[in-house]
Amino acid sequence: MSLYEASVPQLKKMLEGLDSWLDLAVDHAKKKSFEPSVLLSARLAPDQYHLTRQIQAACDAAKFAVARLAGKDPPKHPDTETTVDELHARIRAVVSFIDTVTAADFEGAAKRVVPLSFMPGKGLLGTDYFNEMALPNFYFHVTTAYAILRHNGVPLGKMNFIGSLKLVDT
Amino acid sequence: MSLYEASVPQLKKMLEGLDSWLDLAVDHAKKKSFEPSVLLSARLAPDQYHLTRQIQAACDAAKFAVARLAGKDPPKHPDTETTVDELHARIRAVVSFIDTVTAADFEGAAKRVVPLSFMPGKGLLGTDYFNEMALPNFYFHVTTAYAILRHNGVPLGKMNFIGSLKLVDT
Repeated sequence: MSLYEASVPQLKKMLEGLDSWLDLAVDHAKKKSFEPSVLLSARLAPDQYHLTRQIQAACDAAKFAVARLAGKDPPKHPDTETTVDELHARIRAVVSFIDTVTAADFEGAAKRVVPLSFMPGKGLLGTDYFNEMALPNFYFHVTTAYAILRHNGVPLGKMNFIGSLKLVDT
Repeated sequence: MSLYEASVPQLKKMLEGLDSWLDLAVDHAKKKSFEPSVLLSARLAPDQYHLTRQIQAACDAAKFAVARLAGKDPPKHPDTETTVDELHARIRAVVSFIDTVTAADFEGAAKRVVPLSFMPGKGLLGTDYFNEMALPNFYFHVTTAYAILRHNGVPLGKMNFIGSLKLVDT
């Protein structure tokens, strides 16, 4: 398995899932006659990120994982989103960026040292960076976004989380 | 990167993290003078698993991922845990099982077809099974367990989730 295989297709699929959950959230808000923006500021604990920030963090986790492993400059996103439409645009911008990265860009990624901005002078080998930090961090924010929506009654189920599968016959 | 490298060490680290969050949950309950069992039945939505079931599901996700990729029979765990001590034991039993599996056991795992019990006649190639289903499902339950604890005031932070890192100098 290559780091490209383990990252790009799955990050993209999960981001597209997250994008679709926002549509279900808007539908739910309409059905219950409240503003969708109520959900965007919802959080599970007073000192935890609200939904908007969870989505921004999930987008950043995916963007930086791919950029750092591919040795590319990530696009800048200043975290100014305040509406569902802007969050859709943010997610889609990250998917578009990820789509520009190829398996060839990932050559040498496993052994590349990724510096940690919060720990000057220290870094992680590409494989460890992906398995121990980038991917857990991505799933952390995606799952917390999902949990915030579920906690607020949005009708999501596990298959919305898992998404489509590349089935083969047994 | 091998499937073994992407799975066993990280699943084990996350399970050990989950195990340690339970200790923080018990400390929090003592400090606030409530029974830790209150947390075990906490959930984020009425139709979502409570904490005990999230932990059991995280254990199963890790156990089955490793067993199926290594072509081994997983140990049976009948989901009878009702106390924090029993949940500790369940987590540690899964870590012990994972510890018996070696990189050599994973030979051919990427191309092995893993049958899906909920979709008779269909399965996923090992790599797809791990990236698209087993790992997302594992992180789903681990993160939801974390979210339930955070929602109930247990003092956890992102570093409890990420855990130790294999740092190198840059």
